[in-house]
Amino acid sequence: MHASNSSSKEQKFQVQKLLLQRTVCDSVSDKDFEDRFRELSALGDDHIISVIEDESSGKIIATGSIFIEKKFLRNCGKVGHIEDVVVDSNARGLKLGKKIIAFLTEHAHLMGCYKVILDCSLENKAFYEKCGFKQKEIQMVKYFI
Amino acid sequence: MHASNSSSKEQKFQVQKLLLQRTVCDSVSDKDFEDRFRELSALGDDHIISVIEDESSGKIIATGSIFIEKKFLRNCGKVGHIEDVVVDSNARGLKLGKKIIAFLTEHAHLMGCYKVILDCSLENKAFYEKCGFKQKEIQMVKYFI
Repeated sequence: MHASNSSSKEQKFQVQKLLLQRTVCDSVSDKDFEDRFRELSALGDDHIISVIEDESSGKIIATGSIFIEKKFLRNCGKVGHIEDVVVDSNARGLKLGKKIIAFLTEHAHLMGCYKVILDCSLENKAFYEKCGFKQKEIQMVKYFI
Repeated sequence: MHASNSSSKEQKFQVQKLLLQRTVCDSVSDKDFEDRFRELSALGDDHIISVIEDESSGKIIATGSIFIEKKFLRNCGKVGHIEDVVVDSNARGLKLGKKIIAFLTEHAHLMGCYKVILDCSLENKAFYEKCGFKQKEIQMVKYFI
């Protein structure tokens, strides 16, 4: 389970297909994809995308990302932000979501974060509680488009 | 109102004092502060800290930060994350919080974000609604220390 350094068209297609199960994920051009891939790669361990691949089919069946925010408060502390967790609808019940969260949480810990946070719907609260998270605040949003 | 490029000891002291009104903000060494300042400066417009200074006293009386997350989904979209908004307790009622949020929201817009988000306590919900935000999700957290 890792953020691959390869950005093949097949992988791009698979990650897009998986994200589409959760939110809007338009088809992007190869150039846009590669530019964004390079931008994120340049951030090194401060922004990683983890994937779980079904080795028999070569299919990506779960993904989740984390980026590390650097603050002044909490003794120049760091906070891990978990984003875009998706498990393929055909691979539910295998605890892959829990594995993704455990991996990303451990990454935040290893990076020296004092906490790791994520926003989720109320219906996913119980799942994240099983992963050791507690509800703290509410998320407010403003859309531009 | 801007992220200053200067990191004088006086400014450092003032920002720390202000953040202390909201959360844990230990005293950090000059070296740690300058290292973190350089790390954040290197991110350019992808991570800014805005401040409002009372020009008569030279005191920083409000602050708030934003960083830009880059995604693959939403056509390689970007999301603005607002963090650490604080108004000096002696400067409440001057709508400085609203000014900080308006500035950070406009920054997210100018950076091409499709949305801007923030986490807050339930008691601050009404304030952010006045700033044009709507509640969407809940925030889950896991502390390491």
